[in-house]
Amino acid sequence: MTQPEYDPGPQIAHAASINLGTPDLERSLWFFRDLLGMELVEQVGGVAYLRAYQELTHHSLVLTQQEEAKVNSYGFRVKRRQDVELFHKQFENSGVRALELPAGHERGRGEAVRFLVPGSEHPFEFYYDIEKPLAEESLRSKVLSNSSRRRGLGVRRLDHINLQTSAGTVNEAETWLREELGFKRREFARVPQAPDVILASWLSVTPQVHDLAIGVAAEDSTAQFHHVAFNVENFHDVLTAADEIRDLDIAYGAGPGKHGIGQAMYLYVHDPGSGHRIELYSGGYLIFDPDWAALEWKLPELEWGQTWYGDVLDVGPGGSFLSTSPSAGLVP
Amino acid sequence: MTQPEYDPGPQIAHAASINLGTPDLERSLWFFRDLLGMELVEQVGGVAYLRAYQELTHHSLVLTQQEEAKVNSYGFRVKRRQDVELFHKQFENSGVRALELPAGHERGRGEAVRFLVPGSEHPFEFYYDIEKPLAEESLRSKVLSNSSRRRGLGVRRLDHINLQTSAGTVNEAETWLREELGFKRREFARVPQAPDVILASWLSVTPQVHDLAIGVAAEDSTAQFHHVAFNVENFHDVLTAADEIRDLDIAYGAGPGKHGIGQAMYLYVHDPGSGHRIELYSGGYLIFDPDWAALEWKLPELEWGQTWYGDVLDVGPGGSFLSTSPSAGLVP
Amino acid sequence: MTQPEYDPGPQIAHAASINLGTPDLERSLWFFRDLLGMELVEQVGGVAYLRAYQELTHHSLVLTQQEEAKVNSYGFRVKRRQDVELFHKQFENSGVRALELPAGHERGRGEAVRFLVPGSEHPFEFYYDIEKPLAEESLRSKVLSNSSRRRGLGVRRLDHINLQTSAGTVNEAETWLREELGFKRREFARVPQAPDVILASWLSVTPQVHDLAIGVAAEDSTAQFHHVAFNVENFHDVLTAADEIRDLDIAYGAGPGKHGIGQAMYLYVHDPGSGHRIELYSGGYLIFDPDWAALEWKLPELEWGQTWYGDVLDVGPGGSFLSTSPSAGLVP
Amino acid sequence: MTQPEYDPGPQIAHAASINLGTPDLERSLWFFRDLLGMELVEQVGGVAYLRAYQELTHHSLVLTQQEEAKVNSYGFRVKRRQDVELFHKQFENSGVRALELPAGHERGRGEAVRFLVPGSEHPFEFYYDIEKPLAEESLRSKVLSNSSRRRGLGVRRLDHINLQTSAGTVNEAETWLREELGFKRREFARVPQAPDVILASWLSVTPQVHDLAIGVAAEDSTAQFHHVAFNVENFHDVLTAADEIRDLDIAYGAGPGKHGIGQAMYLYVHDPGSGHRIELYSGGYLIFDPDWAALEWKLPELEWGQTWYGDVLDVGPGGSFLSTSPSAGLVP
Repeated sequence: MTQPEYDPGPQIAHAASINLGTPDLERSLWFFRDLLGMELVEQVGGVAYLRAYQELTHHSLVLTQQEEAKVNSYGFRVKRRQDVELFHKQFENSGVRALELPAGHERGRGEAVRFLVPGSEHPFEFYYDIEKPLAEESLRSKVLSNSSRRRGLGVRRLDHINLQTSAGTVNEAETWLREELGFKRREFARVPQAPDVILASWLSVTPQVHDLAIGVAAEDSTAQFHHVAFNVENFHDVLTAADEIRDLDIAYGAGPGKHGIGQAMYLYVHDPGSGHRIELYSGGYLIFDPDWAALEWKLPELEWGQTWYGDVLDVGPGGSFLSTSPSAGLVP
Repeated sequence: MTQPEYDPGPQIAHAASINLGTPDLERSLWFFRDLLGMELVEQVGGVAYLRAYQELTHHSLVLTQQEEAKVNSYGFRVKRRQDVELFHKQFENSGVRALELPAGHERGRGEAVRFLVPGSEHPFEFYYDIEKPLAEESLRSKVLSNSSRRRGLGVRRLDHINLQTSAGTVNEAETWLREELGFKRREFARVPQAPDVILASWLSVTPQVHDLAIGVAAEDSTAQFHHVAFNVENFHDVLTAADEIRDLDIAYGAGPGKHGIGQAMYLYVHDPGSGHRIELYSGGYLIFDPDWAALEWKLPELEWGQTWYGDVLDVGPGGSFLSTSPSAGLVP
Repeated sequence: MTQPEYDPGPQIAHAASINLGTPDLERSLWFFRDLLGMELVEQVGGVAYLRAYQELTHHSLVLTQQEEAKVNSYGFRVKRRQDVELFHKQFENSGVRALELPAGHERGRGEAVRFLVPGSEHPFEFYYDIEKPLAEESLRSKVLSNSSRRRGLGVRRLDHINLQTSAGTVNEAETWLREELGFKRREFARVPQAPDVILASWLSVTPQVHDLAIGVAAEDSTAQFHHVAFNVENFHDVLTAADEIRDLDIAYGAGPGKHGIGQAMYLYVHDPGSGHRIELYSGGYLIFDPDWAALEWKLPELEWGQTWYGDVLDVGPGGSFLSTSPSAGLVP
Repeated sequence: MTQPEYDPGPQIAHAASINLGTPDLERSLWFFRDLLGMELVEQVGGVAYLRAYQELTHHSLVLTQQEEAKVNSYGFRVKRRQDVELFHKQFENSGVRALELPAGHERGRGEAVRFLVPGSEHPFEFYYDIEKPLAEESLRSKVLSNSSRRRGLGVRRLDHINLQTSAGTVNEAETWLREELGFKRREFARVPQAPDVILASWLSVTPQVHDLAIGVAAEDSTAQFHHVAFNVENFHDVLTAADEIRDLDIAYGAGPGKHGIGQAMYLYVHDPGSGHRIELYSGGYLIFDPDWAALEWKLPELEWGQTWYGDVLDVGPGGSFLSTSPSAGLVP
């Protein structure tokens, strides 16, 4: 474009991957690959790399065999190669400790920078380079934009992650995510009994209502994980998943139902190998308004926001939700 | 963010509105408001302003009573107020004639700049300011992100526009849209018999596969309009629309079916007041990869790209599609 | 068929209609006609006759303006004209008092016989003759099997009725319905704390899992009404109905969800004019086995039977459900 | 019921099974079991017995390894054990030759009578007794009415069969099916160019619009098979099936689309092992009117009847359809 040279600074492209620790890799593989329909792209010892059928990149999900069912990292892809380094510098300048991870630390991935979100202590990893391997021939789709054929319950891409932290740290973390990483607040609610505290905030760098949500953990501890959501094509796919999963010996969380917040259909279940909460998610609206003003949900409407219709979510003390797992520290 | 000052230059936020001329405003209002379920926000004489239930802005559709069923303008919202002026300057520098339209030229809208796309001659209007009025109380939704309740066939927002021009001008126009306006080519095809010529190109400034498509008009004339698409929530909403519209005296185009290109469900019908082709559109995939490489569809796969399943599209000579209406010139 | 003469005796064809008393006819008409999409076939003073778009007969729903929101009658169509008289004789022989209702007692309907179900005291009316008027031209469908075009929330036919009575009378009534009227028990459950008592029984004379259900009323009184169900085409139509009804000022009961019993999708709402509970119902399986054995649901599976997935039903004491309205006595 | 003794004569309960010859049993098993999700109940050498997840009986589909891809038999279950013998007598009395097949001729099945439909020569087999085995534990459902869990593309029961014969024999066969077997004509069309000849007739002994259809074969030969339909729960299941099947190397017939006749959604594909046409079918309306009058479809509405919306069916000369396979003779 005939425009002046400039540097927009480092930016996040999207919430791209998650690394889940699982004590039972085989059972987790059965769940994500055989039931949800993801592709096992590569496995190296106790580490398995998977992607969904509309993801061209090497992986969006890493399953790591380990004793503790914690989340090892939350992966975000940045917009340009140099943004990895630019973010690293920015963190140093603002006193946020970060580690450089070499290319291949996760297979297929280039250099990454790892740090803990100030306040909430969630381990984020930023990277740009990632391979885009073809699926093995038997799985390939005739649709050019699919890395493999739709199968299983039809999971098609990682949609968003949902994080939790203590009431004393949630505001700091949410503010930092907006001011330092460029996330925009799309919808939010305050703790009814403590209006100074963010109950939950839905944040995005894309037109999605949220790529990332952060809220108060009922456990009142930092670095908590609530769920990772995988996107399916239609509401009906969520119903089919509910039908089949209800009939299996899998811990069934809540759903199907529709959120007023984000207007998407949800089903929460738990990976039987690790216990991590997984959301099957469909629909929702997109935000294209450049002057979007964050929507605040208050009681009594807040209940509609959580459950517009369908199976009501399990809400813990103070309207907060029960998280499922802790996250790892700075050193992977 | 702790970043150096810079100016990213002017950018488009999204394809935001369209101004359709109609010889029969009452019949067009019946179609868009009563059947599709859009809200009539304001009407001034022969000009009606409508929006869908997930649009907070004053309008995405303007119906103008006039003799000729042409498209008066294609409206795009820019990312910042100053981008209207910055784009105007950019056009002057590159010799593209443009007109300034005063605030209120379309009700609820601020200052706009109007110009013709070089080569294809389509009249575009860029603006930033637009009012966000509340719907009348009887129509309001309990969902904060909806401007009104879902009703009718459930049209929820303008999704994209599809333009056509002569084989001799399509390449010039498509290149200009990318180089001067920042659209990214997501998927495309060449004319099988004339590989130098773009058959169709799906372009976006958002993660949508296309906010705008441009292709060759079977009529081989410039400034042609193929359709404007309105988004519905699920594939099933397209089926319901097909069921109800088939049973009414409305010119039924094609569908329902699913495109391989974009992976969305389609139904093409014609506004009975104006004859303009309208697409009811649902689904599709989103592009978050910052290093997306445009996908090229060639025969024989190109046919799957057009119709993955369902009712086959009417394709004109050389694989091009029949457009429906011409567009206005530079002076509105 | 080249077969010996015989008389199979009187038989019921299906649960065909219901007569609901409503204190606010206008509001009830708005609900059933304008929202659910039923056709107002005829109105005579305070009595309105409606049918759904796949019903060819004069009416399946009668709304009668009256002070008390009770159910005036449950209408069943018999298989042959003479079955009305044959059933009447059969009732006399077994000491069940019955009234003859002249043709036109409900508009469009022929002679009927009215009686109270022994034990539960629900007022049933049996008839054969009923007119099949064409809809007014503006509503007619191009589909020969539809009496009008699909519209509104897409209610297409009356599906079944759900009755309740006291714990002391439910067994007698359920047995009589099977032995005297020919209903087959398809699925059932006993009161967990009192296994001699039927909690609920799903009965049919058709391949549907139930045309009629009868169970224990939490109120422990006879002649109680739980709901009447209207059928919609797909699960997705139930979701759309939930979406639109949640956003209106209508008493929302429970749903959407899927029953394990019958495998159908449900949404319970209340007619705002009368308060009667209405179910929007879709799917379910059909029974073609001539040697079907009734399925018994016991705890803990019984809970899955009631709610396989989705919004949990409100269950009263002893697992019974809260009914909504009483029914009229023998004299209409 | 307190009714006089009588014998209603023999009656058909429903279209219950089909025996398909296949030159490639393994490929056919992959299609019906692994892709469509049917259960392989038993296999004896080259004969495999399958059922869908809502069928409790031993099988609805028999796949027989043989050179010729013909249909070996069309199976119907009768209402009472003695009806097998009663039908046999009836055939003898009317000069229709029939064979007695011993119990176990098809595994799990009791004695059957086999005959050819006069005129069309289709081999029908009538039986009553059939085992209802439990599925192996790993496949069992928590839903009492399911013989196994829903899986694959969700085929849940055999729905209907579609037969064809020569123009010179179709009327005789259709009349015989109604007069001798008790099928009711629900919807029908005549050959536009030869109004004396039935183009197609949709017949049922149940409230389904058709358990059996018979029409003119484009090939103008007798004993032709057009397709067997398996029922899926919702329209959306047909879309999902189309999506997945389009992406596999399977001969894709037509669909998805909706018939005006019967109002059901269809998808026609071909078993890759045998080439037989299989329909995935959902929805449709049910007929409960005891005085139903057959609906006649004439041009131009007949085209809507065949395809209300969606992918248009391949129609052969004179509006007839191309069949796929011949049927076996009287001796199995």
